[in-house]
Amino acid sequence: MQSHPADRRSTIPLGLNLEKDMSSHSNAIASRQNRLSDSLGAFGFEALVVNAGPTLTYLTGLHFHVSERPVVAVFTPDMQPHLVLPSLEMGKASRAPFDLATFNYGEDPKSWQKAFDIAFESAGVGAGTIGVEPGSLRFLELQYVKGAASDAKLKSGQECIASLRKIKDIEEVALMREAVHMAESAVEATVQAIKPGMSEKEIASELVLQLIRNGSSSDLPFEPIVAAGPNSADPHAVPSSRRLAHGEVLLIDWGANNDGYYSDLTRVFSFGEPSEESLRIAEVTAEANAAARAVARPGVSAGDIDRAARDVIVKSGYGKYFTHRTGHGLGIEVHEEPYIRGDNEELLEPGMTFTIEPGIYLAGNVGVRVEDDMLVTDSGSESLSTIERSLTIL
Amino acid sequence: MQSHPADRRSTIPLGLNLEKDMSSHSNAIASRQNRLSDSLGAFGFEALVVNAGPTLTYLTGLHFHVSERPVVAVFTPDMQPHLVLPSLEMGKASRAPFDLATFNYGEDPKSWQKAFDIAFESAGVGAGTIGVEPGSLRFLELQYVKGAASDAKLKSGQECIASLRKIKDIEEVALMREAVHMAESAVEATVQAIKPGMSEKEIASELVLQLIRNGSSSDLPFEPIVAAGPNSADPHAVPSSRRLAHGEVLLIDWGANNDGYYSDLTRVFSFGEPSEESLRIAEVTAEANAAARAVARPGVSAGDIDRAARDVIVKSGYGKYFTHRTGHGLGIEVHEEPYIRGDNEELLEPGMTFTIEPGIYLAGNVGVRVEDDMLVTDSGSESLSTIERSLTIL
Repeated sequence: MQSHPADRRSTIPLGLNLEKDMSSHSNAIASRQNRLSDSLGAFGFEALVVNAGPTLTYLTGLHFHVSERPVVAVFTPDMQPHLVLPSLEMGKASRAPFDLATFNYGEDPKSWQKAFDIAFESAGVGAGTIGVEPGSLRFLELQYVKGAASDAKLKSGQECIASLRKIKDIEEVALMREAVHMAESAVEATVQAIKPGMSEKEIASELVLQLIRNGSSSDLPFEPIVAAGPNSADPHAVPSSRRLAHGEVLLIDWGANNDGYYSDLTRVFSFGEPSEESLRIAEVTAEANAAARAVARPGVSAGDIDRAARDVIVKSGYGKYFTHRTGHGLGIEVHEEPYIRGDNEELLEPGMTFTIEPGIYLAGNVGVRVEDDMLVTDSGSESLSTIERSLTIL
Repeated sequence: MQSHPADRRSTIPLGLNLEKDMSSHSNAIASRQNRLSDSLGAFGFEALVVNAGPTLTYLTGLHFHVSERPVVAVFTPDMQPHLVLPSLEMGKASRAPFDLATFNYGEDPKSWQKAFDIAFESAGVGAGTIGVEPGSLRFLELQYVKGAASDAKLKSGQECIASLRKIKDIEEVALMREAVHMAESAVEATVQAIKPGMSEKEIASELVLQLIRNGSSSDLPFEPIVAAGPNSADPHAVPSSRRLAHGEVLLIDWGANNDGYYSDLTRVFSFGEPSEESLRIAEVTAEANAAARAVARPGVSAGDIDRAARDVIVKSGYGKYFTHRTGHGLGIEVHEEPYIRGDNEELLEPGMTFTIEPGIYLAGNVGVRVEDDMLVTDSGSESLSTIERSLTIL
């Protein structure tokens, strides 16, 4: 193909009024770039260097693929963004709804360093500290950045980037709300089609079809987890050929991609009456989920959320079977800040979005998890997901 | 979710005899690790450091996600692979079909450097030159690697890795052949369903459903390109709401994912008779494709393939409208070595797989591309894809 992996379909949200939408999206981009300029100063960076990926899209509205051809944007406090990119991607750059300086290169890798050199010189970057995104910038881009700014010090810009991204604006919340709605509709259609004797893989395929039918991009946030019986006790189960039997717990962990914004939910089901212990751990886990949701509000720490869920499970006697953190931030990546971990004393703020997903895993027997997508509001919090949290008997 | 983006479904190929298959897969992994040991010596590396991604899966058969938690394998010429990973991924590591030393860490990032330090010390790595994968290893992993091996020199191991990966073994070719078959069946079913008045997006959705129905993982190699009328002249078109009209060219560029191995094809269609020029450029492009396929054999250079296609198009007078390289390697990434570029004098060898995809793009009017997936054999080459290459009138 002449395009590239993980290409997104559009630089503007789908399904809304185009004109109104483009303008509100341009405003959002401008506001993000302004906030970044302020943030660079606060963190002591002369520039932030971002390669193709979710953060670049967040800051520019432009979608580039991660490929063998580096795409790198240089953001400084005072100048327009400077973008180094392959010539064949110039069409996209020309559609940027803001002032952008572009530096393009041809097919021969020997010519690429020069484009970086000119861009960094034009941006006046190279003497101070440059922030980079640790989970995205690769050795490939780093070599060119070092070549163009050999005196600069490269440092993690994670905190600087997260300080912007973890507070969602109204447009982002609307996209996530719709991504949750897509996921809920898809699973409701899927469970209608489930019959005992179907394999985990067959159920997963049906769910994927339903996600796409319900408006999700086919570029899903992750391959759904569909785990039946003892497989449900593995938090990292992948769908197998194992067939669903009567009375077994069926755990489904799935999400939709709505124009680059994700949902991520988990629910448990059963065909016919499950074991008493299955019902018991499902009930405890739903209680832990509810307890964590109840404490989520501005000023409460991520660690407090984790403890609220964990306390319920510990009191029930299943504490040692809740083997992971309670949740993670969610938005344009499946895992992003804030992480809902006991040792994270970061305080919640309005606009943050994250999962609450306690679980109990009895190895070789049965596991359950109940996962919701939360939004911190001005006065409390809201679960974007609302479908039944108890174990549903089909 | 408790799993992660881009998780693959299984560590062994699907749909074959499990026992036979696991053993042949273990043998393939052992052979790759042995070839790597030899290659490390030849390239002067004391170690190769590989993070989660296609190369790690290629060398170990294990699937880890690229996430905020680093997963890094250290390969040395003489010792078993050393793997640093989160504790919660230890279950996967324990299923490795070879001797593996593991070094795991918990949820708190402050504890991660120590796991790297111990792993590198155990592997005896840190004094020489370490090869890294430029298109995969991130600043995140690099910081830990540098912390654990501060005296080592880090250098691109791209050539070393590509020297292994670009020669596909029998098992890999079988997986790719099946990925091509999935893609061909899916597009055949899709064109049956196409009617004038359908939008590019609707056609793309139907194609995605058909890919999954025909056995592809829903984690597609890329979102299909479906471009009608003037949109077909943009090699990077993304499916839009534009509706297909009578007589317009419809360009489809799509691929399937068969257990991590990809296909990548392009064909052109039309509802009713297209313009004379559309037919003409489709004919020239199919001729260019055939000419390039005809010269592909061991000992011929990648540049020769590019020139064979380009000559046909130049002679037809459309040379300046063929704006990109003729193709790229294909396998466990959509773009990999060998790149079929005029300036690449690398010689083809049996077992190489790559695309041949000349195109002619008349901006604002119409574009065509004809893309096949090639395998270099001992005595020549074979196109894994065989469906009709002429513009098909629906």
